[in-house]
Amino acid sequence: MQKDNRISIREGAFFSFISTAFKGISQVILIENAVTGLIILVAIMISSVSIGIIALLSACIATFIGRFGGTDKAIVNQGLLGYNSVLAGIALALNLEGGWRWAIALAGAAVAALFTAAMMHWMRNSQMPVLTFPYIILTWFLLLASYRLSTFQLSSNLVPQDLSHWKLQPGGTIDWIHGLVNGIGQVYFQDSLWSGILILLAVFWASRKLGLYAVLGSVAAGLTAYGLGAEITLLNLGLYGFNAVLTILAVAAVFDAKSRLAPLTGLIAAAITVPVTASVDVWLLPYGLPTLTMPFVLVTWLLLAAKKVIPKL
Amino acid sequence: MQKDNRISIREGAFFSFISTAFKGISQVILIENAVTGLIILVAIMISSVSIGIIALLSACIATFIGRFGGTDKAIVNQGLLGYNSVLAGIALALNLEGGWRWAIALAGAAVAALFTAAMMHWMRNSQMPVLTFPYIILTWFLLLASYRLSTFQLSSNLVPQDLSHWKLQPGGTIDWIHGLVNGIGQVYFQDSLWSGILILLAVFWASRKLGLYAVLGSVAAGLTAYGLGAEITLLNLGLYGFNAVLTILAVAAVFDAKSRLAPLTGLIAAAITVPVTASVDVWLLPYGLPTLTMPFVLVTWLLLAAKKVIPKL
Amino acid sequence: MQKDNRISIREGAFFSFISTAFKGISQVILIENAVTGLIILVAIMISSVSIGIIALLSACIATFIGRFGGTDKAIVNQGLLGYNSVLAGIALALNLEGGWRWAIALAGAAVAALFTAAMMHWMRNSQMPVLTFPYIILTWFLLLASYRLSTFQLSSNLVPQDLSHWKLQPGGTIDWIHGLVNGIGQVYFQDSLWSGILILLAVFWASRKLGLYAVLGSVAAGLTAYGLGAEITLLNLGLYGFNAVLTILAVAAVFDAKSRLAPLTGLIAAAITVPVTASVDVWLLPYGLPTLTMPFVLVTWLLLAAKKVIPKL
Repeated sequence: MQKDNRISIREGAFFSFISTAFKGISQVILIENAVTGLIILVAIMISSVSIGIIALLSACIATFIGRFGGTDKAIVNQGLLGYNSVLAGIALALNLEGGWRWAIALAGAAVAALFTAAMMHWMRNSQMPVLTFPYIILTWFLLLASYRLSTFQLSSNLVPQDLSHWKLQPGGTIDWIHGLVNGIGQVYFQDSLWSGILILLAVFWASRKLGLYAVLGSVAAGLTAYGLGAEITLLNLGLYGFNAVLTILAVAAVFDAKSRLAPLTGLIAAAITVPVTASVDVWLLPYGLPTLTMPFVLVTWLLLAAKKVIPKL
Repeated sequence: MQKDNRISIREGAFFSFISTAFKGISQVILIENAVTGLIILVAIMISSVSIGIIALLSACIATFIGRFGGTDKAIVNQGLLGYNSVLAGIALALNLEGGWRWAIALAGAAVAALFTAAMMHWMRNSQMPVLTFPYIILTWFLLLASYRLSTFQLSSNLVPQDLSHWKLQPGGTIDWIHGLVNGIGQVYFQDSLWSGILILLAVFWASRKLGLYAVLGSVAAGLTAYGLGAEITLLNLGLYGFNAVLTILAVAAVFDAKSRLAPLTGLIAAAITVPVTASVDVWLLPYGLPTLTMPFVLVTWLLLAAKKVIPKL
Repeated sequence: MQKDNRISIREGAFFSFISTAFKGISQVILIENAVTGLIILVAIMISSVSIGIIALLSACIATFIGRFGGTDKAIVNQGLLGYNSVLAGIALALNLEGGWRWAIALAGAAVAALFTAAMMHWMRNSQMPVLTFPYIILTWFLLLASYRLSTFQLSSNLVPQDLSHWKLQPGGTIDWIHGLVNGIGQVYFQDSLWSGILILLAVFWASRKLGLYAVLGSVAAGLTAYGLGAEITLLNLGLYGFNAVLTILAVAAVFDAKSRLAPLTGLIAAAITVPVTASVDVWLLPYGLPTLTMPFVLVTWLLLAAKKVIPKL
């Protein structure tokens, strides 16, 4: 009997641990739901099993650090220490090359958990959520380190550009379906139709309202970007969409969204991410770095803080 | 009778609204005075009627957002939600080209009001004023977005420069009168003698002390910049002056200026803006962006915070 | 009798002043100990008497500002207003050329004291130490101003680099002894064996524990950098070491180091400074600026804040 009990306790501990890790994956898109996390993991594995494994291991590392480091259980169990690690793991494994990248991705995931904890402390007084800021800064730093450390081999896609010779590349045929679905899939760096649809389903699984907002955010960003004359190739890849999807979820549904105007504010926020995405992208051109979710972080902080002073937003 | 009352209430509301908008214009130079705002509006219109209209509309948009958004009336009525919008509207209309720029300027003015509100929340604990930080960041972002969005057409004056081929361009004849007056006019992007003089008069209208400090700030910056070997062309345009003018007003008169040494601290602050202006300018060269009032913001925050720890400053 | 008293009071005041200045020098390496400061001053003077004089004068200027400005005596007497001035004075005198550099170094030291005071105010709520952040930002700003002000003559060693033509330069023979000792000496910009050893002795004088940690930090950084494939020339100069030395002292011994895991956390922190050093260096390449102690500041803030949320670190 006692033996069985012990096994079930161990099993319980294992399931609690793995469920927290899945929540770490779902929290990337601002949702606390283990099943959503599992479906998203499958969506990632459809395009690359090894990236999926890295995502899961990264979430586990962060959960481990939180549990054994004595962090407030409520924070750890919601997956709030994990989502930055998940993103850092995926981003580093995708943007580096060579055999060392797996080790760098996992070490980066561990530091991302520390960084997330640090930001929680730094932002305590501001009443603002940490969002994905730690992962962004960490990933940029580690990608740039490749210019000085030979074990860090940068993907050949990331090329520094000289702004003075920069030319906008218009032209191309827009593919709305792929563009809008990719806008959702790119939250997890996915640009295949099936992965995007699966991730959208995972969001709907957690909440129909969030699913609708995700679609709305992608559409709003697509139309705004098209209207402002964005490059069609970037639109088709969904690169103007994922920041808008995250932002509308954060502003209209997840954080402090009691105002009657919240849906409108969310749409405006989603639209604002478009020029901000363009701009962050240009800031980074001389360094050849990807924009990641910085526009989401900036615009969400902007609107959440503005609401404190303009309450009817 | 009742009818007349209603009209006078509506008239009162209109005048209160427009007076707040004018205060938004005067708050750019740290003054709450509707007449000062009106005189400055005239000064702007002397060189360009359409820029003047943009300035006024920007102030109105911010006032509207504040009033209907439920912001603390004391803040809105002092014009504190408006001055960043005024500057953003002017800066965007001047530094972009094409027909879309008017719409972008007004949309930028609206977002500047949100950004100002957000910064008020962010800085609440620091006991520091927001100053023009939101307008600066917003304008930089929107100007850079032009490299990715075809509706944003950047002025051909803004050219990214490669620092490794950069050469200082000394030489030229200094024109002290124009340089010093422009140092005041450039607070509102004006470089004509009459606009500068009118803006100075508007400051004197609000307070003789502030007027004298404005002159003193422009002189201090001019002498410091000349002594440190600044380029004469920039000196003549007043580009080393306007940050010093704003800084001496902020440090020596407007904020927390009870110390006996406040005038001296103000002069030192004005002098410090000169190397900071040079430096911010160089940081931005690879992006071809204008310095705007960032040196004023940095040096004012520096000295206001230093005073909290070194009280006799 | 009265005369003698007065003299001894004056002497007492002089010794208290000079002892505070020496503590300003020792606080650069996070130690409050006048003798340590004096030994380090000698170490600096071995390679350059004039740089030593600048270091001492910079500490005196900061002490003077703190005493006559009415700053809390406990802060001033620990040398906490002085160490940023010491570093700014040395860094500016070393990285600028021409006769004006001495004046710029001392003016920079004065502004560094104001900046340190300002940062103390800004960071009050975060419960984090200011570290050397003010000196770093100030030095970067003043070095960049040289592109716009002819009295600022930049050292010809500081050349902006284009990232798109950047090639990693491996190769070379590692010299462990010099590299590890320089890792300690570079805290004060020293790369000669005797200066480094003297600085290490000065640390041991203050505390054997701190001395051991300094050695450990330099070794940890050397091994990490070598393992990650850093350039040998930079390793031999100790340029991967000094940030690690400062970080291990801060994280494992000086601030909030009651956890049993503190030594391990300190070693991990020292190792993290290596990729961060590489990265900050790359960020600055287009501007040709030196990394200074920014990696130390970033990694120390990261770990001290993370400890607040993950208490067992």
